[in-house]
Amino acid sequence: MEPFALKTALDNVRATTPLVHCITNYVTVNDCANALLAVGGSPIMSDEPEDVNDIQTICGGLALNIGTLNVRSVEGMFVAGERAGELGHAIVLDPVGAGASALRTRTAGDLLDKLAVSVIRGNMSEVKALAGGASSTRGVDVCPDDAVTENNLAASAAFARGFAAKTGAVVAITGAIDIVADAERAFAVRNGSAVMGRITGAGCMLTCVCAAFAVANPAALLESQVAAVAGMGLAGQVAEGRMGGYDGNGSFRTYLLDALYRLDGEALEAGARVEELA
Amino acid sequence: MEPFALKTALDNVRATTPLVHCITNYVTVNDCANALLAVGGSPIMSDEPEDVNDIQTICGGLALNIGTLNVRSVEGMFVAGERAGELGHAIVLDPVGAGASALRTRTAGDLLDKLAVSVIRGNMSEVKALAGGASSTRGVDVCPDDAVTENNLAASAAFARGFAAKTGAVVAITGAIDIVADAERAFAVRNGSAVMGRITGAGCMLTCVCAAFAVANPAALLESQVAAVAGMGLAGQVAEGRMGGYDGNGSFRTYLLDALYRLDGEALEAGARVEELA
Amino acid sequence: MEPFALKTALDNVRATTPLVHCITNYVTVNDCANALLAVGGSPIMSDEPEDVNDIQTICGGLALNIGTLNVRSVEGMFVAGERAGELGHAIVLDPVGAGASALRTRTAGDLLDKLAVSVIRGNMSEVKALAGGASSTRGVDVCPDDAVTENNLAASAAFARGFAAKTGAVVAITGAIDIVADAERAFAVRNGSAVMGRITGAGCMLTCVCAAFAVANPAALLESQVAAVAGMGLAGQVAEGRMGGYDGNGSFRTYLLDALYRLDGEALEAGARVEELA
Repeated sequence: MEPFALKTALDNVRATTPLVHCITNYVTVNDCANALLAVGGSPIMSDEPEDVNDIQTICGGLALNIGTLNVRSVEGMFVAGERAGELGHAIVLDPVGAGASALRTRTAGDLLDKLAVSVIRGNMSEVKALAGGASSTRGVDVCPDDAVTENNLAASAAFARGFAAKTGAVVAITGAIDIVADAERAFAVRNGSAVMGRITGAGCMLTCVCAAFAVANPAALLESQVAAVAGMGLAGQVAEGRMGGYDGNGSFRTYLLDALYRLDGEALEAGARVEELA
Repeated sequence: MEPFALKTALDNVRATTPLVHCITNYVTVNDCANALLAVGGSPIMSDEPEDVNDIQTICGGLALNIGTLNVRSVEGMFVAGERAGELGHAIVLDPVGAGASALRTRTAGDLLDKLAVSVIRGNMSEVKALAGGASSTRGVDVCPDDAVTENNLAASAAFARGFAAKTGAVVAITGAIDIVADAERAFAVRNGSAVMGRITGAGCMLTCVCAAFAVANPAALLESQVAAVAGMGLAGQVAEGRMGGYDGNGSFRTYLLDALYRLDGEALEAGARVEELA
Repeated sequence: MEPFALKTALDNVRATTPLVHCITNYVTVNDCANALLAVGGSPIMSDEPEDVNDIQTICGGLALNIGTLNVRSVEGMFVAGERAGELGHAIVLDPVGAGASALRTRTAGDLLDKLAVSVIRGNMSEVKALAGGASSTRGVDVCPDDAVTENNLAASAAFARGFAAKTGAVVAITGAIDIVADAERAFAVRNGSAVMGRITGAGCMLTCVCAAFAVANPAALLESQVAAVAGMGLAGQVAEGRMGGYDGNGSFRTYLLDALYRLDGEALEAGARVEELA
C-alpha cells in the first residue's frame, strides 16, 4: 500500500463528515460517538425498529455492534441493515462476544448472512466463531490461543483472506498485531498500545471509526480500513505516551479520544507500521 | 434582564439541589447525570413505565430527551409527564432528531401536545420540525440553512416568541447564537464554544441543566433558562480556554463538566453575553 | 482484621482477572466496566434473558444493579442469578433506589429472596428499604436521617449484622462512614471523599468492584468486601488529592479510575482506615 493512501483516507473523512448510524452497545456508546466526532465523522444512534429506516436513509453508513444485544435492537439491526443494503451504504459488523453465547454467535452469523456487510471488525476469537471454526472466547476478550502472533501471522492472514473471500467483506482482526484483509491482499498493522485492553471500548470505537472511513472512501475500502486501524493504533500509542505517574485507564481513555481528535495525516503516514503480507 | 438574575438563578439551584427525573438517551446519559451534579442538582434516571410515576413523584421536575427513543421509553415519558403535570412540576422537552425521522417528529409533537411542557430546548432544525415548519435536519445536528446568525436574528427571535406563544413553553434554541424566548420577550445569548459541537451531549446536558434551573426558579422561568443557557455556554468557553496542545474532545468534555462544577455566580454575570432582542 | 488481608484480597484480583457479568444501569455502565478493568477484573455486560445464561456460565460472578431496571432486564437478572446459584458464583446486589419506588423495592426484595445473594451493597436508605424497615429515600441518595454517623455507629453495625444474619449475605452499607458486616462481625471503614457524591456512579462502580473481589477471594468473602470498600474509598481520597483549582467532578471521575488502576496493596494497607466494631 502506498503510504499516501493513509493520509488521503483520513483527509476524506475530515472533508466529508460522514454520518454514521450506530446500533451499538450501551456500555461504550458514548465513547463511540465521541470517537466518531474526534476523527471527523458524525454519529447518530438509533435502534428502535420503527426509527431506523428513516435514520439510515439520511446517513452514509451503518455500524452494528452486538455487545449488549437484545431482541428489539437486533430487529433494528436487520431493518437498518436492509435499508443500508438498498442504498449501497457501507455496513461494518462487530461480532462482540461471538463464541461466548449461542445468541451472539447465531445473531452475528445471521447479520452476516442476510446483510451486505462491507467490513467485519473483531478480535480473532470472535471472527473465528463467526467463521464457524472451533473457537473459545474469554468473554469479550480474545482467547490467548487465538491471539495473532509473529509465529502464526501467515496462517492468520490466510484465514482472514479466506474469510474475506467467502463473505465478500473486508476482514479486520485486531489484537497485539492487527490484520486487515480482503480476498486478495492482507496487511499486518503493528501499531497500538497494551493499555487499550485496559479500557472498555477500544474495539467498539474502532468499529465506528472504520465505518466513517468506509463511508468516506468508497473507492478504496481496503485501504481505508488499514488507515482506520493504523490510526486508532497510533492514537493509542500517543495516548500511552502522555500518561504520567498518576494516570491510569481513566486518563488513557480521555487521551485516546484526544489523540484521535489531533490525528494528523502526515503523522499517520510517518507512524503507521503497515506491512503487506505475502 | 437584570444581570443579578443570572447569579440568583444559579444560587437557587445550588441552595435547593433540585431532583430531576431524566428519561434520556443512553448515549449521553452519564454526562447528563454528571452535568446535573456539577451544577448543583441531583439526577434520577428511570424510564420503565411501571417505575416512572413513583420516581416523578419524589422529584421536582422532568427532562425528556428522545435521542434514542424506543417504544417502552416513550410510554414511560408519557406516564412520567402526566404525573409531572398533576404535580405542577417543570417539564423540559428535548426533541433530538425531530425532522430526521417520522417517529421522532411525531413523538416530539405528541409529547408537546399532551404534556404541560415548560421548556423546549433544541437546535433550530429540531424546533422548526416540532413547530411543523418545513425543515430538514442533518441527523442530530442543525441544518446549515437553519442556523441562527446575526442576519436572521430578528426573524429567528420572532419565530421563537411565536412558538412560545403557541405552546405556552419557554423556547430555548441553541447554536452559535442561542435564543431564549417566551411569548413576550426574547434574548440572544452569545456564549459558547465551537468545540461543544465536537463532543456528543452538549445539548443533552444543557437540557438537564435547564430542568434543574426551572425547578429551582419557579417564579422566574424565562430568566432561569437564560441563566442555564448562558452558564453552559460560559462553561464551554472556560473549557476551551483550558485546552492544551494535546487536548481534544476527550479532555474538552471533562473540562466542560469541571467548568460547570466551578461555575460561579459572579463570573456568570460578568461573562454572560445576553442581549434582549426588540 | 489483619492488615495483610487487604493486600492479599487485591493481589488475588490482579492475579486471577475475575470475569464479572454485570446487569447494571445504563447511566454508569461505562464507569463500571472501566472500574472493573482498573482494579484488575474483566467486565461482561449482558441483560437479554436469552443471552445471560451462557454469559454467566463463562463468568466467575454476577453484579446486579437495578438503577434503570426494566421488565426485560429484570427477567435477565433472575435468569442470570439462577445460573450463578447453580454454579456457586458470587452475586452482588445493588438495590439502587429501593424505597424510592414500589417497583424498585419489590424487585430488590424479590432478587434477594430468590437468588443466592452473596453481598448486598447500597446506602443505608436503600438497605433499610430492602430490610423492610420504615425508610425514606431521597431518590438514589441516602436520606439524611439514615446516614451512618459516629453517634449511631453501634446501632448501624447491629442492624447490618442482623440483616446479614437474616439474609446470609455480607452487607456493605456505604456513606460518609462505611459498614461491612456479616452475621458475626462488623467493620467500619472511614476512607472516601465527599466528592464521590458529586459524580454519578461511585456506588455502582464499587458494586462491580465488590463482585470482582468476591470472585477472587472465595475463602474470605467478608475480608474481601472490606478490602473493596476501603480500596474504593482510598482511591477517592487519592483522586480528591489530585484535584487542582480548575478541576471539578469531570476530572475527579477520571482521577478515581486512575487511582483504582494504580491502587497498590501496600498503599491500601497503609491507607485503609478499618476498625472492627464490638
